[in-house]
Amino acid sequence: MTNQRLQQQIAFVVEIDRLKQVLRQTQLMDASRRENSAEHSWHLAMMALVLAEYAPAGVDVQRAMHQVLIHDLVEIDAGDTFCYDIAGHADKADREQRAADRIFGLLPAAESDMQTEPDGDRLRQLWDEFEAQTTPTARFAAALDRLQPLLHNWQTSGGTWKQHGICRAQVMQRMAPVEIGAPELWPFVLGVIEDCVTAGYLQP
Amino acid sequence: MTNQRLQQQIAFVVEIDRLKQVLRQTQLMDASRRENSAEHSWHLAMMALVLAEYAPAGVDVQRAMHQVLIHDLVEIDAGDTFCYDIAGHADKADREQRAADRIFGLLPAAESDMQTEPDGDRLRQLWDEFEAQTTPTARFAAALDRLQPLLHNWQTSGGTWKQHGICRAQVMQRMAPVEIGAPELWPFVLGVIEDCVTAGYLQP
Repeated sequence: MTNQRLQQQIAFVVEIDRLKQVLRQTQLMDASRRENSAEHSWHLAMMALVLAEYAPAGVDVQRAMHQVLIHDLVEIDAGDTFCYDIAGHADKADREQRAADRIFGLLPAAESDMQTEPDGDRLRQLWDEFEAQTTPTARFAAALDRLQPLLHNWQTSGGTWKQHGICRAQVMQRMAPVEIGAPELWPFVLGVIEDCVTAGYLQP
Repeated sequence: MTNQRLQQQIAFVVEIDRLKQVLRQTQLMDASRRENSAEHSWHLAMMALVLAEYAPAGVDVQRAMHQVLIHDLVEIDAGDTFCYDIAGHADKADREQRAADRIFGLLPAAESDMQTEPDGDRLRQLWDEFEAQTTPTARFAAALDRLQPLLHNWQTSGGTWKQHGICRAQVMQRMAPVEIGAPELWPFVLGVIEDCVTAGYLQP
């Protein structure tokens, strides 16, 4: 009823539905439940749209949007690793590489060199670039990925910071990619962190 | 600690978190729970990325991606209206226009004619274009928005169709925008509908 190429693309679209079931530590801003990685990725794409003017020179904002849309797909196999979980991070890279092989491998290869549409290789390149953090685009995407949970912890009066006894120095280290990838947003981040310490949401 | 413009943008980013709590009728593909409109919007943006090659001439795929990311934001105020709910659709347009006024109105106005970044007016124009369905881009975005729940109902052995006793003619009418906005995908849609009728997921 249809061609093999479209069948593979639809199989990928069906498979990625599972990202809606990967729970992050972050709570929704009204603290009613934990956030999942699909809605988190949507939120980051919206931030790319709304905060595009803070992207430094050299950033391809559209490409950054694509990166945040796909950056967590590997969690379908590898799960979400809490950012302050040292043990979980020991084999994170390995688990995620295997996941990327399988998940992006569901998509067909490029049909020709002229093709401009994303396929498995192109999505894999997007993800590799995001992981490598060597381009301004990937650094801007990562800055959004760090900024968003800060907003959640701020709005939930400390949220996961309180649950895990996180202190200011840990958050400062976690937020460093914002200073690197979106320096214009850094004063805002520092202000939120100070407000959160003052309010008792975050240990000094 | 920061400028008024950024404060408004952050307030918008915080506000739209509520879309994660708007539940659709559609179930996740493993039927474990209902889908929310934020993760639905992420799924559509991923479809724009993966199915871009099926966009007809004249479609700006990036713009279509932006449209699917924002198309349901009005549901934060107006709620999700089930597509086969005739009564609910009577005042849907009114409710959604008021919602658009408030939600996009949270964002600052453009700073200058030279500005290329989205702001309140630009996001509102994206949404207005999607609603009006008069451009190839908006029609492609709408095609994705119809195709995705078809995949969910197919994968959940009839899902919401069975719950509400939906028949083939209703689904054919509901899917018509796919034929208009992404005609290359229409044979696939017809095939899925036939398979679903044969399997008893959908009343003939």
